[in-house]
Amino acid sequence: MSEPAAADDGDRRDSYPHFLTIPTRWADNDVYGHVNNVEYYAFFDTVINRWLIAEGGLDIHGRESGQVIGLCVESHCAFRAAISFPDDVEAGLRVGELGRSSVRYEIGLFATGADAPAASGWFVHVFVDAATRRPVAMPAPLRACLERLRAPAPGSPS
Amino acid sequence: MSEPAAADDGDRRDSYPHFLTIPTRWADNDVYGHVNNVEYYAFFDTVINRWLIAEGGLDIHGRESGQVIGLCVESHCAFRAAISFPDDVEAGLRVGELGRSSVRYEIGLFATGADAPAASGWFVHVFVDAATRRPVAMPAPLRACLERLRAPAPGSPS
Amino acid sequence: MSEPAAADDGDRRDSYPHFLTIPTRWADNDVYGHVNNVEYYAFFDTVINRWLIAEGGLDIHGRESGQVIGLCVESHCAFRAAISFPDDVEAGLRVGELGRSSVRYEIGLFATGADAPAASGWFVHVFVDAATRRPVAMPAPLRACLERLRAPAPGSPS
Amino acid sequence: MSEPAAADDGDRRDSYPHFLTIPTRWADNDVYGHVNNVEYYAFFDTVINRWLIAEGGLDIHGRESGQVIGLCVESHCAFRAAISFPDDVEAGLRVGELGRSSVRYEIGLFATGADAPAASGWFVHVFVDAATRRPVAMPAPLRACLERLRAPAPGSPS
Repeated sequence: MSEPAAADDGDRRDSYPHFLTIPTRWADNDVYGHVNNVEYYAFFDTVINRWLIAEGGLDIHGRESGQVIGLCVESHCAFRAAISFPDDVEAGLRVGELGRSSVRYEIGLFATGADAPAASGWFVHVFVDAATRRPVAMPAPLRACLERLRAPAPGSPS
Repeated sequence: MSEPAAADDGDRRDSYPHFLTIPTRWADNDVYGHVNNVEYYAFFDTVINRWLIAEGGLDIHGRESGQVIGLCVESHCAFRAAISFPDDVEAGLRVGELGRSSVRYEIGLFATGADAPAASGWFVHVFVDAATRRPVAMPAPLRACLERLRAPAPGSPS
Repeated sequence: MSEPAAADDGDRRDSYPHFLTIPTRWADNDVYGHVNNVEYYAFFDTVINRWLIAEGGLDIHGRESGQVIGLCVESHCAFRAAISFPDDVEAGLRVGELGRSSVRYEIGLFATGADAPAASGWFVHVFVDAATRRPVAMPAPLRACLERLRAPAPGSPS
Repeated sequence: MSEPAAADDGDRRDSYPHFLTIPTRWADNDVYGHVNNVEYYAFFDTVINRWLIAEGGLDIHGRESGQVIGLCVESHCAFRAAISFPDDVEAGLRVGELGRSSVRYEIGLFATGADAPAASGWFVHVFVDAATRRPVAMPAPLRACLERLRAPAPGSPS
């Protein structure tokens, strides 16, 4: 057991097709003077859902049967360097695996302009019916916006 | 007792000399589908402290005697319209009263481009010695950056 | 302008008919080593809504017309002493004013066993139809649970 | 890729030697009506740090060289069932791996009285010098309190 391995090439800035700048807030810093580990997951949630709403037609207020929302079933983060208020975070987003009703996002959080991430992680959404909360195939617009974030297969021509 | 009065002219966008755009986050929304009332105070904290750090030399990591930090002793907010993720908030900031060791900020939170605030409030900082936590006169650079945010006296020529 | 006045007799522990113990969390502490001012309002929200759910039948998941939810329209807090993780907070709750569709709660936050509050504030709920979000008269069970928290009128026999 | 596997025997309530009850807060619920995934990590942080402070002498306010604090370098959570305000969470804590300067905690979050966890995860602390932020061997009292939370080796006699 040791510290997380240094980010490898697969985590560098140019491996993420989409970025969102997220300004830190005063309350993000904890008693140790840096953004609390918990908030990194709030950054994950935010870059993901903003993409789904803007590009995939996700309606987060939907409650009716037939409407589809995404629930988090698993998440993970490796913390490599500190981020502190009042810095901005540049959140990179790509899609690792894309199933019928679920998707695994990969997220890198970068200091402004940095090439290696301060943290990287992943997050799995299962899409469910908003009323029954049972998994359903994701609607076409959602799938399409996720396809656009697919990471290239290793070794594939760019 | 009734709903807060509608914002009057003193709360309109052009009464605030400084603005910071604060993107909402997924976790800001509560079960009723809008940004939770608590988070509005996090927006207050953020626009204020970013100003003090960038313009007034505030060192939020200071712990030594002789260093000065600002502690909140009172705050207030009137909520007039809902804000929801994924909207941005435009936080307007001005200084209402400026004492020897304390300052009363007035904050307006606006939807993008709106003239009337979705919420408005105030927040009082007492500046204290970082080690003893006793009130002290604010250092000149802090005072100078706050003077620049003074609200014009009512009826004063602009 | 000065620090908030010391709590007077009206803010002492025995002036609150209901208490909820709220343990602090790691993330509540900010960079200055104490619970961030924003979190105090989360404590207000929590003691209020737990009472309404447990005693007044509030259904926070209601979205249908005819269901009633409470929206915060104004809140205020005066901070008198620091609270820090891992301390518990004892949140005292009483009702100051009770209207047809709105209620003003008064809240005192106490360190364990303390007689004077570390912070005190107030919070106004307007009850609205869950679908239309228009103010409505509060249902009888909600009103009844709020009547039980009425503060005695000043000078009234105890 | 699928939903997280159902919790196996290794995740059941009696596999955790220490529990802390954490009441949920109003603001924990997100727009989907359940505690937001991010807050589960705040529960992890809280059960861990309360143990270290109460049992291991951790001083979270330490800033001097020679003082030791724990920084999170990796965390993970699998979400199996929803938790909602106003429910309590019972957070179970055990130690999986214990190194010279780092520890891997395993956490199970349970609904009141439930045998299978609503969520389970892990969290790695590296202990560092509070001033230099370089890894150091954990002090004896910290190590001792972590030894007491060691999970039994698989197949060991109970």
